[in-house]
Amino acid sequence: MKILVLGGDGYCGWATALHLSAEGFDVAIADNFSRRLWDHELGSPTLTPIKNLNDRLRLWKKISGHTIPSFVGDITNWEFISQTIRKFTPDAIVHFAEQRSAPYSMIDREHAMFTQTNNVMGTLNLIYAVRDYAPDCHIIKLGTMGEYGTPNIDIEEGFIDIVHNGRSARMPFPMQPNSMYHLSKLHDSNNIQFACRVWGIRATDLHQGIVYGTNTAETQQDEGLINRLDYDDVFGTVLNRFCVQAAAGIPLTVYGKGGQTRSMLDIRDTVQCIRLAALNPPKESEYRVFNQFTESFTVNQIAEKVKVAGAKLGVEVKIEEIANPRVEKEEHFYNPKNTNLLDLGLKPTLLSDSLLDSLLNIAIRYKDRIDKDIIHPKVDWRKTHNQRINIPGLKKTVKE
Amino acid sequence: MKILVLGGDGYCGWATALHLSAEGFDVAIADNFSRRLWDHELGSPTLTPIKNLNDRLRLWKKISGHTIPSFVGDITNWEFISQTIRKFTPDAIVHFAEQRSAPYSMIDREHAMFTQTNNVMGTLNLIYAVRDYAPDCHIIKLGTMGEYGTPNIDIEEGFIDIVHNGRSARMPFPMQPNSMYHLSKLHDSNNIQFACRVWGIRATDLHQGIVYGTNTAETQQDEGLINRLDYDDVFGTVLNRFCVQAAAGIPLTVYGKGGQTRSMLDIRDTVQCIRLAALNPPKESEYRVFNQFTESFTVNQIAEKVKVAGAKLGVEVKIEEIANPRVEKEEHFYNPKNTNLLDLGLKPTLLSDSLLDSLLNIAIRYKDRIDKDIIHPKVDWRKTHNQRINIPGLKKTVKE
Repeated sequence: MKILVLGGDGYCGWATALHLSAEGFDVAIADNFSRRLWDHELGSPTLTPIKNLNDRLRLWKKISGHTIPSFVGDITNWEFISQTIRKFTPDAIVHFAEQRSAPYSMIDREHAMFTQTNNVMGTLNLIYAVRDYAPDCHIIKLGTMGEYGTPNIDIEEGFIDIVHNGRSARMPFPMQPNSMYHLSKLHDSNNIQFACRVWGIRATDLHQGIVYGTNTAETQQDEGLINRLDYDDVFGTVLNRFCVQAAAGIPLTVYGKGGQTRSMLDIRDTVQCIRLAALNPPKESEYRVFNQFTESFTVNQIAEKVKVAGAKLGVEVKIEEIANPRVEKEEHFYNPKNTNLLDLGLKPTLLSDSLLDSLLNIAIRYKDRIDKDIIHPKVDWRKTHNQRINIPGLKKTVKE
Repeated sequence: MKILVLGGDGYCGWATALHLSAEGFDVAIADNFSRRLWDHELGSPTLTPIKNLNDRLRLWKKISGHTIPSFVGDITNWEFISQTIRKFTPDAIVHFAEQRSAPYSMIDREHAMFTQTNNVMGTLNLIYAVRDYAPDCHIIKLGTMGEYGTPNIDIEEGFIDIVHNGRSARMPFPMQPNSMYHLSKLHDSNNIQFACRVWGIRATDLHQGIVYGTNTAETQQDEGLINRLDYDDVFGTVLNRFCVQAAAGIPLTVYGKGGQTRSMLDIRDTVQCIRLAALNPPKESEYRVFNQFTESFTVNQIAEKVKVAGAKLGVEVKIEEIANPRVEKEEHFYNPKNTNLLDLGLKPTLLSDSLLDSLLNIAIRYKDRIDKDIIHPKVDWRKTHNQRINIPGLKKTVKE
C-alpha cells in the first residue's frame, strides 16, 4: 500500500512516515517546511536537534533499507498537490499539512486569516485532487478533539442520534471550537463530509487529542532520526511544556484554575492509530470519525504527574497558577468516547509509563538547549493584536 | 441609527438599503460590484434594466430626500473595511457582501475556492474590524436555510436542546450544507459564534430561505430604482426562474422529482426582517439565529402555483422534469421553525399574493430582454469541471 504523508517533516508527520515505512508501507513525504519557518518567526526552535529532511531520509535509508521520497511544495498550490498525487498514485494520504497551533491562530487577524486560508484551501485542493486523480484513495485527515469544545453531554465519535419532538435522526455531532485554528479544522471536517457524500470520496477524520512524547520505536534508533519537541508557548502542548519546565527548574505554568480536562495520547499511539486507519479503509462515500486519544486528564492532574515523575529523577517540581490567556471553561463536564480505534486493535501507551522514558529524560538530556524565555504565554485570546517582538540578547518577548 | 449595508448594490442589498433609508435610518452602502462582474463572466444579465449605483442613489435622493453615501471596495481588503467602519461609525452592519450562488460555487475547484475564500475572509475581516473599531456594533449576517440541509427532525432556530445518556445541553443545531457555497456560510456562522463568545461581539445570523420577487415599496417608486432580477441557471432562484420561463413561453424546468421542499420569502419580507433585527439588537456576546422565511413549498408546488397564476394572465404554462444537476434528497421531511421574527412583528407577504404583482407581471413586462439560453442548468454537482463557454451569436453554453 502506497501512503503519502502530507506534512511529513513535522512532529506527528515525521514519526508517522517512519513508522509506516518500517511497517512495510511504501511511503512518500510532501512538505513545504513551514513548521521550520515558524521556528524562526517565533524565535522558538525545537528542544531536540533535528536534521534536515534530506539528511534524515538518507539516514533512515541506511538504517532501515527503506527509501522515502520527498516532494517539496505547498498543498495550497494546486499544481503541486495534483502533480504529486499523479506521480505517486497513493492508496492513502495522511494529511498533517496544516498550521496546528491554537495560540498561533490567535496572535492577530493576519495569523487567524493565514491559518484558516492555509488549512481550508490546502484541504480543498486535496479533496479536488483526490476526486480528479485518485478517486479511490483514502484521505486520513487529522482533525482535533478541540472541534467538539466541552459540551455538557458525552462526546460521541463524529455523529449523534438525536430524538426531537417525536422524530429521530443521526446527525453530525454539534461542534463548538475555541480558537481560529480549531475552527479551521471544523471547516475542513464539514468540507470533507460534503465531498464524501457528493463525490463518493472515502475519508477518515481523526479527531486527535493533545499529543505528547518524542520517541517512537523508529525515531529512537539513532539520534539523527530524533523527532522535534516544541515547548514554547505557541507550539508546545501542555505536557511537553511542563516536562521542559521541570527539567529547566522553573515552575510549571498552569493556566487559570487548571480544571480544564483534555484528552491526550502518546505520539507512539498517534502512529499506531494512523496505521490502523490505513489498514481498515472506509467504504466509498463514507465519512467516518475516530476520536484519537487514550486518556483524559485535567491540567492540574498532568502537573501533579510531572511532579511525581520528577521526584523519581531527583528533580523538584513547582507548580504555579497563572492568568489564563485563553477564553475557556476552567471546570467542566468532559466525557469523550474513543472506542472506534480500540475496536480496530489500538493498544494504548499510558501516560504514567511514558513520562520518564519519552519525555522527562529527553527534556533533561537536552536541558542546555532550553530557552526559558519562550515558555510563558504571550498570546491572549481577548486581544486581537498580540504583538511579538523578539529582542536579541534580552530574548524577551514584549506583549502589547 | 446608522446602518452600513455591505453588498448594498446587489439584489437583497439594494432593496434593504432603500427600505432602511425610507424608514429613517442613516444608511451607507459598501460594494465592490462583483455581482455586476459575474453578469459578464456568465453572460447572464439581470432581466430588469438596473442603473449604475451612482445614478440610482442620485435618483433616490431626488425622490426621497435621503442621501445614501457609497463606499466602493472589497471587504476582503482589510484597509477598505476597517477604514469604512472608522469613517461611517455604524451602529449596525448588514452583511450581504458574499458570493451567494450554490451553482457558481460548484462550477469547478477555482469557483469553490473563490467562494470559500471570499466569503470566509471577508467575514473574518468584518469581525476583526468590528472588534477593533466598533465593538458595540450589531452584525446582521445573512446566512442561509441551506446550512441546515434536510434533517429528519424539526429544524430549530440555530440551537437545539439535546438529551443524551441522561444529560442535557443546549447545542448548536447540527448542520449539513449541500454545496461549497452553503458550506462557506456555515464556516462564517461558526467563526461569528466564536467571536461573540470570546470578544463580546453581538450578532444576528439570519438563516434566510429562498428570496423571490422584485418590487418593494421603495424600488417601485420609479423605474430607475428597479431591483435586479436574475433568472439564469446560476444566480436565478427557483421561483424567479419559473416566472421568467412562464413569460417566455418555455416549460418550467423542475430538477428531478420536484419533491425537494424549500423555505421561501418575498423580498419585501427580507427588508422587513432586516429592519426588525436592527431595531431589536442582541445583547453583548450574544450570537442569535433567526430562520428568515415565511412559507415552505415543494418545487412541484411552486411550479403548480406559477401555472395557476399564469392562467389568470392568459399565459399557458408547461412543466418539464429534467435530470437533477444537484446531489440532494428529492423527497424528504422538512419542518423548519420561524417564530423568532414573527414574534418581533414580521407580517408575512404570502406567495399567492406576490406572484402576479411582483413576479409574473415584471417578467412579462421585460419579456423582450429574456435570453432563453441561460436558463437550463449547466453546472452538475457530480462534475468538478463544469466548463462554461459563451459562444457569441449562438449564445450557447457548452457543457464539458
